[in-house]
Amino acid sequence: MVYLGIDVGGTGIKIGVVDAEGAILAQGETPTLVGRPFEDIIHDMGVCALGILERGGYSVEDVASVGIGIPGIADQNTGVVIFCTNLGWRDVPLRAELQRYIDKPVYIDNDATVAGYAESICGVSVGCHSSVFLTLGTGVGGGIVIAGRPWSGAHGVGSEIGHIPMDIDGEPCTCGNFGCLERYCSATAVIRMGREAMLQHPDSDLYAACGGDANKVTAKIVFDCAREGDDVSVKVFRRYVHYMCLALDTVVAFLDPEMIILGGGVSKAGNFLLDAIREQLPRYVLFKTRPFARIEIARLGADAGMIGAAMLGKQPVKEG
Amino acid sequence: MVYLGIDVGGTGIKIGVVDAEGAILAQGETPTLVGRPFEDIIHDMGVCALGILERGGYSVEDVASVGIGIPGIADQNTGVVIFCTNLGWRDVPLRAELQRYIDKPVYIDNDATVAGYAESICGVSVGCHSSVFLTLGTGVGGGIVIAGRPWSGAHGVGSEIGHIPMDIDGEPCTCGNFGCLERYCSATAVIRMGREAMLQHPDSDLYAACGGDANKVTAKIVFDCAREGDDVSVKVFRRYVHYMCLALDTVVAFLDPEMIILGGGVSKAGNFLLDAIREQLPRYVLFKTRPFARIEIARLGADAGMIGAAMLGKQPVKEG
Repeated sequence: MVYLGIDVGGTGIKIGVVDAEGAILAQGETPTLVGRPFEDIIHDMGVCALGILERGGYSVEDVASVGIGIPGIADQNTGVVIFCTNLGWRDVPLRAELQRYIDKPVYIDNDATVAGYAESICGVSVGCHSSVFLTLGTGVGGGIVIAGRPWSGAHGVGSEIGHIPMDIDGEPCTCGNFGCLERYCSATAVIRMGREAMLQHPDSDLYAACGGDANKVTAKIVFDCAREGDDVSVKVFRRYVHYMCLALDTVVAFLDPEMIILGGGVSKAGNFLLDAIREQLPRYVLFKTRPFARIEIARLGADAGMIGAAMLGKQPVKEG
Repeated sequence: MVYLGIDVGGTGIKIGVVDAEGAILAQGETPTLVGRPFEDIIHDMGVCALGILERGGYSVEDVASVGIGIPGIADQNTGVVIFCTNLGWRDVPLRAELQRYIDKPVYIDNDATVAGYAESICGVSVGCHSSVFLTLGTGVGGGIVIAGRPWSGAHGVGSEIGHIPMDIDGEPCTCGNFGCLERYCSATAVIRMGREAMLQHPDSDLYAACGGDANKVTAKIVFDCAREGDDVSVKVFRRYVHYMCLALDTVVAFLDPEMIILGGGVSKAGNFLLDAIREQLPRYVLFKTRPFARIEIARLGADAGMIGAAMLGKQPVKEG
């Protein structure tokens, strides 16, 4: 048997045929073309999946289950997508609609949740009983794995770590609250801080690297300038590391997982970011002499969503 | 078989003989007398437990296991108490020492963790697959239950919800960090806010209720004055509810448990506090139209620690 994994993004829908160990056997992609009726998007999703199966030499009968990762939340009982901001979806019967094309069990979960799950199946957190995955992108997504299985909470509204309040009366967030964690730990936060710093310091390397255009600031440019020793960028980088340590301390103090995995655009800074966090974090955690979560960079990159989604249908091996 | 439950506090050590359903069959208490060598404290603990067993008509052979709740953290593999601030304990071999008196399996966990576990065995959260317990006292303790079992994390340093950073550069905390959740949500926080408010408003009912003495401010007095309509106290109460909603939103956004249970001194405000929180909280959570955790007041009171500790040794019923 094989597992179909579908990673729904605002631009493209990635689909993979995955084996029980998380290895990709065949894959493809179809554009999302946001704005169309959901029926059309799900039609393309189904047709594309059937084509990938066929080209890979598989039939629908070979498929154990279909898993879908969405940038939003779903009701796991009904298979209805509750919210999916990027796609403008609200109460979309994704499971029922997709089963018109592929009549197999369909599991739906949050994209960060399935990406974290994938890392625990065949990525950096293989063998970890518990882990927390953080995607550091436009926002901050969270994925929790407990006892080797994804945890989205009792009502499917958990692991929204980006929206934990981290600063009372802090920066306004897109969600309507103030001071949410993602206002400080996302790529968007690095860009905001980088812009402020650049405009205040026209003599900085950061200013030069962006040609003096605040709209050209990216997290990569800020971190690259910091790596090169530009004082202004180093200051932004250090502030970002401070915020990340507060976020990681939150995860340690709350759930104390075996591992915390950093994914998403910002994590591409790799060891430059990881080394700084690993050096600073022990000063933040409550029990400074006790072991706590290993911090690692995600390994599966853009395939994580597809693999983790596919694995949603994989039943846990019974213990004992 | 029966289970021995021991609740170690800074003042007294409560010991109970508990059945598999969490019912107390016999109980007693011995003073902690902090400052003595740990061997003496554990000697009294062992002797007192043996006496309670005997008076209840039980022998050591009837005891399946011993569970101990401590206001600190322990290494669950070695049975060594790592930290226990109230008792001044550091690296105390509690399990080995107690087994000199009662040679049975000994389990040790945090007091808030075992109190939360007790509520899920025979208190307000019976039947909940997941719950989070918050003790609102001098500090804020946390207890997590997942899949019906206590969760203290992969390294035993989790569920320290009182030390989640809630305000960047906020109030200094006893732990050395700034802006920890317990600086805003503990009884200590109510007292701090009450004192400030009272001193600024000598014409307030709160000032009168304390006889103008800031040292006489308690959380109960502040809440009682708020209930009676004293403007100054109402303002403190509302601020406290705001902070509690941020804390509860943190729990919902992170773990999304089935239930969140409020225990400890502040929770004695009962429905006055609960109603205010239940009214305000929906404005804080991310997905405002989705169900989220029921908020309840703890039911087991001072017995929770003893019962939950006893139940640590109870093996989970295998599913399926």
